[in-house]
Amino acid sequence: MTKPILMAFCALAAATTFARAQGERQRDPAKTEVWKPVPVTVATPKDAAPSDAVVLFDGTDLSAWEAEQGGNARWTVADGAFTVVPGSKGIRTKKRFCDIQLHIEWRSPAKTQGFDGQNRGNSGIFLQELYELQVLDSYGNPTYSNGQAASIYKQAIPLVNASRAPGEWQEYDVIWKAPRFSEGGGLASPARITVLHNGVLVQDGTIVSGKTEYIGAPSYSPHGCAPIYLQDHDSKVSFRNVWVREL
Amino acid sequence: MTKPILMAFCALAAATTFARAQGERQRDPAKTEVWKPVPVTVATPKDAAPSDAVVLFDGTDLSAWEAEQGGNARWTVADGAFTVVPGSKGIRTKKRFCDIQLHIEWRSPAKTQGFDGQNRGNSGIFLQELYELQVLDSYGNPTYSNGQAASIYKQAIPLVNASRAPGEWQEYDVIWKAPRFSEGGGLASPARITVLHNGVLVQDGTIVSGKTEYIGAPSYSPHGCAPIYLQDHDSKVSFRNVWVREL
Amino acid sequence: MTKPILMAFCALAAATTFARAQGERQRDPAKTEVWKPVPVTVATPKDAAPSDAVVLFDGTDLSAWEAEQGGNARWTVADGAFTVVPGSKGIRTKKRFCDIQLHIEWRSPAKTQGFDGQNRGNSGIFLQELYELQVLDSYGNPTYSNGQAASIYKQAIPLVNASRAPGEWQEYDVIWKAPRFSEGGGLASPARITVLHNGVLVQDGTIVSGKTEYIGAPSYSPHGCAPIYLQDHDSKVSFRNVWVREL
Amino acid sequence: MTKPILMAFCALAAATTFARAQGERQRDPAKTEVWKPVPVTVATPKDAAPSDAVVLFDGTDLSAWEAEQGGNARWTVADGAFTVVPGSKGIRTKKRFCDIQLHIEWRSPAKTQGFDGQNRGNSGIFLQELYELQVLDSYGNPTYSNGQAASIYKQAIPLVNASRAPGEWQEYDVIWKAPRFSEGGGLASPARITVLHNGVLVQDGTIVSGKTEYIGAPSYSPHGCAPIYLQDHDSKVSFRNVWVREL
Repeated sequence: MTKPILMAFCALAAATTFARAQGERQRDPAKTEVWKPVPVTVATPKDAAPSDAVVLFDGTDLSAWEAEQGGNARWTVADGAFTVVPGSKGIRTKKRFCDIQLHIEWRSPAKTQGFDGQNRGNSGIFLQELYELQVLDSYGNPTYSNGQAASIYKQAIPLVNASRAPGEWQEYDVIWKAPRFSEGGGLASPARITVLHNGVLVQDGTIVSGKTEYIGAPSYSPHGCAPIYLQDHDSKVSFRNVWVREL
Repeated sequence: MTKPILMAFCALAAATTFARAQGERQRDPAKTEVWKPVPVTVATPKDAAPSDAVVLFDGTDLSAWEAEQGGNARWTVADGAFTVVPGSKGIRTKKRFCDIQLHIEWRSPAKTQGFDGQNRGNSGIFLQELYELQVLDSYGNPTYSNGQAASIYKQAIPLVNASRAPGEWQEYDVIWKAPRFSEGGGLASPARITVLHNGVLVQDGTIVSGKTEYIGAPSYSPHGCAPIYLQDHDSKVSFRNVWVREL
Repeated sequence: MTKPILMAFCALAAATTFARAQGERQRDPAKTEVWKPVPVTVATPKDAAPSDAVVLFDGTDLSAWEAEQGGNARWTVADGAFTVVPGSKGIRTKKRFCDIQLHIEWRSPAKTQGFDGQNRGNSGIFLQELYELQVLDSYGNPTYSNGQAASIYKQAIPLVNASRAPGEWQEYDVIWKAPRFSEGGGLASPARITVLHNGVLVQDGTIVSGKTEYIGAPSYSPHGCAPIYLQDHDSKVSFRNVWVREL
Repeated sequence: MTKPILMAFCALAAATTFARAQGERQRDPAKTEVWKPVPVTVATPKDAAPSDAVVLFDGTDLSAWEAEQGGNARWTVADGAFTVVPGSKGIRTKKRFCDIQLHIEWRSPAKTQGFDGQNRGNSGIFLQELYELQVLDSYGNPTYSNGQAASIYKQAIPLVNASRAPGEWQEYDVIWKAPRFSEGGGLASPARITVLHNGVLVQDGTIVSGKTEYIGAPSYSPHGCAPIYLQDHDSKVSFRNVWVREL
């Protein structure tokens, strides 16, 4: 007798239909599509700043910078780069920044004779004027590890030494998270920094212990957004293609 | 006629069987049961230390402690508690600790006349000898917020003031995570502290900025496990029921 | 001739004076005192809820709760405690919560004969209705480790088994951080939970992987603040002294 | 008479000398120099893989890869790039990875006519075979935000849309932190991902919620190191300059 089988099919079909209806609700891939917000479009031309960047040096002038002691930045500009004038003191951006992505290219002098350790191609990029990402010619130039290129000066040794030879352009791509302070002035979260040096990860969400100190231990004091400062350390270090994206 | 209903049941049963076969693979609750490891059993008698605790004071003597200046701890023991002897200096545990759960009860002197602010019922619990959880009579006794009871001294204000009156016993339940340092001496992760004061959350995974400083900003220097230190701050503060569980 | 020496001394003295003046500025302990904000005062009576708590059960009635299926909570109230009525389904708070400190006391039935594993003294505290902190008689009652008392059910084994005997009151002190979701519905930060079981740390900032599942892997879907839900799992588990502080 | 004054000066000078001696100890910059460990040197030639990288494609062959279904990877290699063969299924690395820095360049087909949304230039980079960083032609090609280029598919929208036009080479620089699981199988820490798309930060330490799902919510199950998998999604997407550095 075929009837029971037919009916069984009927019932099965019914059960299947029910399951499918339920399944369609649970298994609809559209349910996990999120259409809003739509990320802002940013143009990313090869070898140029992204369209949403604050360009801090476009190859022509230092109008985005001022001298450490006030007044115009007096470093030299030539051939699409700018260069430290030893003795002129550091320069800082007119604009203040907190969390940023920073791209900066730098070159230490090709002539290294007579200069060693911390005296060879030394400069520094101070985030928020206080926290130094070291610039140094660390190509076959021994110094203390927490003072070599791409160190957080006297705080954090880079994961590897990704330095290129003196006279060659090098790149830092930096993700900087400013420290946060509580209403009472306590440290709510320390600064953190990630750095690619010539495309290689050298600082990986490194915790910054406090403001950079030449002598003694780093510590924090509450502050707000602040300029990026470049150091005059008596070496004719050059910079180019400097831009920042505020995060 | 009952037959169709019966047959429908048959069909349903068939569908169910198929679904169950598939379901048994995907839907077996036993698949997410984890039987190993089996947590160690800890006895938790009411008003006594857990069975796995290092008891630092059981009401009778200070044998787990030594004087700050060396030698036996010279604070007084009476009535199941021990009390600061002003001028005798602090005491510290003979044992060293890193990450811990700490339970400690304390009582500031009932007599407060003539003592105000930081002079009223002042002591301190220094984790790893460096990081102070403040002990102070903060019951209607104004002082700077980052120096009141349950503050991380001069670093972090407690979320609320959960203080009891002077002369009453109070409790701190502390979860302490020691700072970590990288091979190069940098700060890999800062210390963190959670504190319940009389059962109320007052420090909530607070980041400690460095060692406690009376003057100036806190900073970190690499160190290992270290004693718990109790401060003599010229107040006859008492303690009892002190135990630690190493995490 | 002594004059030059004298003048040198004069100069030194002047320099010293200047340095001291500067030092007094730098070394003033008042500089690191923070007087604002002043933490709110919370009364913390022994064995009672803190004055700023939302009391969810004060020993008399279940007015802060409703039945899972709607309507009044139908669990029984007696002797300052309330007890699951097996078969009546769970109950949930009328109020919704996000980040909280929760204190809750519970007691599994003294009579355990005939009940084993997950059938002995089983209930559960679901934070935000989704994330279960297990309640179970785990006193000499083997079950899967990620399903015993103080586990995050099928996600996280407690650090130790701090269970008291059936029929005895037990305590959970919980710090709950709700999960955060990004505007696009992604997980910005997972929920985290810290639990003291009878005063002993058993969950230590544990990351919650998603909503509790009996079968299959936990996952997150965006949601907001939500009630605390207590489970009816066919065991006459009792509760008392239930309070919440919103963080 | 000048003598007393002179003696006062002498005393002052002595005190100064003492302070200076002490200061020299405390203020020695060498004390915060760390010379060990010395970071490994990594050569970073312009437009080539770092010297310590595992090169997964050097322009010539797919020997580092195998077909999803086993056997040799059957995608085509030409002009220093390799290209999806639609219908051939995905390919995965023979080597397994956990925490990595990944550099990969990709190009979606220049011809876009007739292809829209998820059908235009679709592929995907699955870290540890489970977690998809989306590859899609998102240049003026609307789709759901959590499914566009540089999204963590159906989990995390990129911060910005940094896409270049179809037919142009694009770059992903990825920092991938594998999820960690506890001994009991719970999630100890979720996976995290940072991505630069054409040099622009698009994922910033994003928490990954679980394995990528087309339907339903992502969840975690314990696993170890695993291959990188590239998806065949019926689009002739090309790849080149693929390398990994193990972190």
